[in-house]
Amino acid sequence: MLVKTPEPPYVAIIFTNQRTGDDDEAYGVTADRMVELASQQDGFLGFESATDENGLTISNSYWRDEEAALAWKRNAEHLAAQKLGRDKWYQAFSLRIATVTRAYDFERD
Amino acid sequence: MLVKTPEPPYVAIIFTNQRTGDDDEAYGVTADRMVELASQQDGFLGFESATDENGLTISNSYWRDEEAALAWKRNAEHLAAQKLGRDKWYQAFSLRIATVTRAYDFERD
Repeated sequence: MLVKTPEPPYVAIIFTNQRTGDDDEAYGVTADRMVELASQQDGFLGFESATDENGLTISNSYWRDEEAALAWKRNAEHLAAQKLGRDKWYQAFSLRIATVTRAYDFERD
Repeated sequence: MLVKTPEPPYVAIIFTNQRTGDDDEAYGVTADRMVELASQQDGFLGFESATDENGLTISNSYWRDEEAALAWKRNAEHLAAQKLGRDKWYQAFSLRIATVTRAYDFERD
């Protein structure tokens, strides 16, 4: 489902990752919990994620401002999940924090 | 495959879309051609895309600066493809242009 976000500027956290395949069940539980937890944070605007058939996942979350995005990055329960990600779940990842400056939407009638 | 990008700042085009399912073969050909064409543009840094089982696609492309990103948006062959996208292929999409300000990478040994 596409996320509706307010007019820019706002902040995107672009999280792209390749999984190891280790411990998939616990991964799924933790990933779902992180989406739930993120959505409860001040300044959360939305989340969207897609995983392709090769296990590449792109997850974008949107935040009111950089302060809100960095607060999420430093959330204690999220930090614990990040450690598990580095220890077990991710072969590689990239995390990018970006300021959205322009946005366009299209929806078919 | 995860994209390697230089140190920030650089620009991300975040293109999220939901397909209609119409004309899938021509869509695939055009999508492949757009990746090839984008990669030939001045200032192109990389492209990554994932489609989930519900047809949600997140495609991120990375560019040296906003000028390069906007030049790609206005490329003539790309404009023709964008028109086909609105006419046939996309149920909905969001396009966001963002300046990446921080980035972190992880790769397992």
